[in-house]
Amino acid sequence: MTHIPGIVITGASGRMGQMLIKTVTDSDQARLVGVVERSGHDWIGQDVGVAMGGAALGVTVTDDPLEAFAQAQAVIDFTAPEATLEFAALAAQARCVHVIGTTGMSDEQIAALEPASRHAVIVRAGNMSLGVNLLVQLTKKVAAALDEDFDIEVIEGHHHHKVDAPSGTALMLGEAAAEGRGIDLAEVSDRGRDGITGARKRGDIGFHAIRGGDIVGEHDVLFAAPGERIVLRHLATDRAIFARGALKAALWGQGKSPGQYDMVDVLGL
Amino acid sequence: MTHIPGIVITGASGRMGQMLIKTVTDSDQARLVGVVERSGHDWIGQDVGVAMGGAALGVTVTDDPLEAFAQAQAVIDFTAPEATLEFAALAAQARCVHVIGTTGMSDEQIAALEPASRHAVIVRAGNMSLGVNLLVQLTKKVAAALDEDFDIEVIEGHHHHKVDAPSGTALMLGEAAAEGRGIDLAEVSDRGRDGITGARKRGDIGFHAIRGGDIVGEHDVLFAAPGERIVLRHLATDRAIFARGALKAALWGQGKSPGQYDMVDVLGL
Amino acid sequence: MTHIPGIVITGASGRMGQMLIKTVTDSDQARLVGVVERSGHDWIGQDVGVAMGGAALGVTVTDDPLEAFAQAQAVIDFTAPEATLEFAALAAQARCVHVIGTTGMSDEQIAALEPASRHAVIVRAGNMSLGVNLLVQLTKKVAAALDEDFDIEVIEGHHHHKVDAPSGTALMLGEAAAEGRGIDLAEVSDRGRDGITGARKRGDIGFHAIRGGDIVGEHDVLFAAPGERIVLRHLATDRAIFARGALKAALWGQGKSPGQYDMVDVLGL
Amino acid sequence: MTHIPGIVITGASGRMGQMLIKTVTDSDQARLVGVVERSGHDWIGQDVGVAMGGAALGVTVTDDPLEAFAQAQAVIDFTAPEATLEFAALAAQARCVHVIGTTGMSDEQIAALEPASRHAVIVRAGNMSLGVNLLVQLTKKVAAALDEDFDIEVIEGHHHHKVDAPSGTALMLGEAAAEGRGIDLAEVSDRGRDGITGARKRGDIGFHAIRGGDIVGEHDVLFAAPGERIVLRHLATDRAIFARGALKAALWGQGKSPGQYDMVDVLGL
Repeated sequence: MTHIPGIVITGASGRMGQMLIKTVTDSDQARLVGVVERSGHDWIGQDVGVAMGGAALGVTVTDDPLEAFAQAQAVIDFTAPEATLEFAALAAQARCVHVIGTTGMSDEQIAALEPASRHAVIVRAGNMSLGVNLLVQLTKKVAAALDEDFDIEVIEGHHHHKVDAPSGTALMLGEAAAEGRGIDLAEVSDRGRDGITGARKRGDIGFHAIRGGDIVGEHDVLFAAPGERIVLRHLATDRAIFARGALKAALWGQGKSPGQYDMVDVLGL
Repeated sequence: MTHIPGIVITGASGRMGQMLIKTVTDSDQARLVGVVERSGHDWIGQDVGVAMGGAALGVTVTDDPLEAFAQAQAVIDFTAPEATLEFAALAAQARCVHVIGTTGMSDEQIAALEPASRHAVIVRAGNMSLGVNLLVQLTKKVAAALDEDFDIEVIEGHHHHKVDAPSGTALMLGEAAAEGRGIDLAEVSDRGRDGITGARKRGDIGFHAIRGGDIVGEHDVLFAAPGERIVLRHLATDRAIFARGALKAALWGQGKSPGQYDMVDVLGL
Repeated sequence: MTHIPGIVITGASGRMGQMLIKTVTDSDQARLVGVVERSGHDWIGQDVGVAMGGAALGVTVTDDPLEAFAQAQAVIDFTAPEATLEFAALAAQARCVHVIGTTGMSDEQIAALEPASRHAVIVRAGNMSLGVNLLVQLTKKVAAALDEDFDIEVIEGHHHHKVDAPSGTALMLGEAAAEGRGIDLAEVSDRGRDGITGARKRGDIGFHAIRGGDIVGEHDVLFAAPGERIVLRHLATDRAIFARGALKAALWGQGKSPGQYDMVDVLGL
Repeated sequence: MTHIPGIVITGASGRMGQMLIKTVTDSDQARLVGVVERSGHDWIGQDVGVAMGGAALGVTVTDDPLEAFAQAQAVIDFTAPEATLEFAALAAQARCVHVIGTTGMSDEQIAALEPASRHAVIVRAGNMSLGVNLLVQLTKKVAAALDEDFDIEVIEGHHHHKVDAPSGTALMLGEAAAEGRGIDLAEVSDRGRDGITGARKRGDIGFHAIRGGDIVGEHDVLFAAPGERIVLRHLATDRAIFARGALKAALWGQGKSPGQYDMVDVLGL
């Protein structure tokens, strides 16, 4: 009998899924006990290590999440909103910690996690890295300390495959800045600046989405006043930081009371 | 009798006008011989040094440009398109070199300078700094050397009073990149990226306009490929570089054949 | 009778002195009542506005500090350590707030301010800007939150006239990082890295001093771990921010109990 | 019979060796035909794919370079200076193109490659990436266009394991700047700036070596004048770019006349 938590990875064949599998198998604090893909995917029934082009790992890819979750203590899930809702119900049934890194969930979808969180621990975050979560807190603090003489702009950069702009993390930083100032982001958000815009409106928060190459994720929060500027910057250069953060969340959630948590809880910031 | 050229400054009371007056009076290669403001401005009839809050300079502000130009060898003009067209005709009549830093001129307005340039030297540039003109050339060269694996993005920053986006200099850099690739900027220009955009289109050139504080002018040209990036960056931190560039153009134009020139000619790049 | 505090500026003819004079005369919250230069300086006896090449300001430059201080409520002093010690004694005698922006004071010289601070308010800071003082606090907080997986490097840039490296502000940031980690900067400081250095020692704090052009002052604190980085950056682009900070300190000090204060007190950070 | 060149990788077990093996096996323009490690290494006799923890590749690791080279058209070699000299002789004997990415070679060691280059093609470069080689050329061009009003500083960043400072690439950029100005780098090189240095000497070229985390390689060349700056920047974010550059060199060298070449030749810059 072991106390090392067993982990299931969903969306196994994606870039993030493979990174999660590698992170879990490399760790001595967790065991990979299950790997889930959607029905009909050609990895189903194969050893996941072989499917990834390496040595066998002794774990077969399945399209039956509940069977996989039943043997596990945590599920790490970076898939899509609909799949995540389904996984949340099954993870709650299996009393697994459900770590959700899925992005693009609507307010309704987030609200729909509530029933599951009455029975199991859910840790959900738009960004699982230590650095970004720290940056969010700094942004709130700095926005609160400075007045509107400091114009705020959030500039992010991502790889050319990204389909939405600005990034969820950029919006999270903008929310933190607005919260620090005690205002509503929706009232001051300035996106897609182009053309004859007139002078910048005092108090606005601007957003810029750079796209190019294979940039993993870069975020600047600029505070610019006459004569001086402060920049708070985070650079992610390896997707492994998100996988390590997710695994940390899965381990942290063991033994916690059911409920919804985020990375600020996990990191104890 | 002196060979030191006499200079007239138009739009004297503006931020750039005052910078030009200071640059000319500080120089020992040029003399300030006239200062022009529009009729009705309260500086008219005053000594320009006193009007600027300092010591007298012995030059009275006038609303009669032709009278001022008649005593000069060059006119430096950072005003507005309509005024600039009027000044071009008068400068040609007086056989003055006309240095034009006015921005926002339409193609029609630029074409309308042609008659004047048959009689006098016109030097016109969207940006008079040595560094920016060098950056334009580098951008063209790098864009020609790299293929479309390198995604190009132009990111500029200016003070919060600026009313248009992106800056004229950013567009000039985008034109240079497109020219280096042998394509038409209009076909590939991607401005105001926001929302569900889909993946970045190969070959596109993106633009971003940061606004904040009193940023004088900053331009990055990013070339981002998988695994590596090149950035060409120019920072202007003092408007005086534009004034020094304009004065350099006024001196360079003495004795040249009538025609239209730009800063690449002046700087010999 | 006015409640607007009267201010004396010392070291009037220097770059910072002239900036301070301009800042005080531009403010409607303070009056310029005296200007001090050293005996023998050719500004002595002149109106300071005229000496600066502008319009008269109605204040004559003097070499008698005590006479000037006797008419004032505050002295702003960016001179040299020996002069500052002398001014401190005289300001205390006149019960003036003494704002000290002088750099390069030794520990002994700082200790020698103590007697003066028993009779009057002294506000002393290595850097008077709001942004830098905020950055110092952020640096301490981030260093406390992150472990030694994050390598810390402080990178600063200044104009080519600067004679010491790294800047006092860079050292202040390094001290803040060390304090956040609960260690002694002297034990981990890594300056002038060059040659066959061996691998970076875990826990070290590195310093780099870029010199070029007329850079007013730029400071980066880098926290670099595998896969991610945080950068805290401050850019000073106009020396006026230091003058405005000093004036703010002079006004804040009115009515405070005698003692030594710094900008964290003034800014209420 | 195939015209696809066969490649041997030396130093197979190192980080760069494994990257090269992956790059060659992923390419459809080259075949992996041999893999060399030093005698006594525990990979000797194993299939290299299995030794790397993945699927078998059908190539056995050997400690006999000549046997391996005899079956190949090119050798890619990122090892150490002494090993590289030995490989050069054997590659010349086998008439293989020898691509050398080994760093830290002395002038004597470089000269000792001459005999080999009379019989075979040698391509040697301090940095195999397209971007860096382009940056070297831009640096030379910009340094030639600007006068000494522009202070030059080279700032590089690498991971915390790196044992030397500044990087070979930083020195290559410094050499290019000096060459552009027609001066000798040794006369103007300013490394390890620290303490009471006095004002920056006009014409100097400064170097700074940031170390932290797992930074792959970042280089800035700063040209700073009063009022403006130009920065030429290269970021390497994936070691694969060096492997791809090396493979490109191996392919380019096929059929060329014996001699020594560099990446500027290969890239046709």
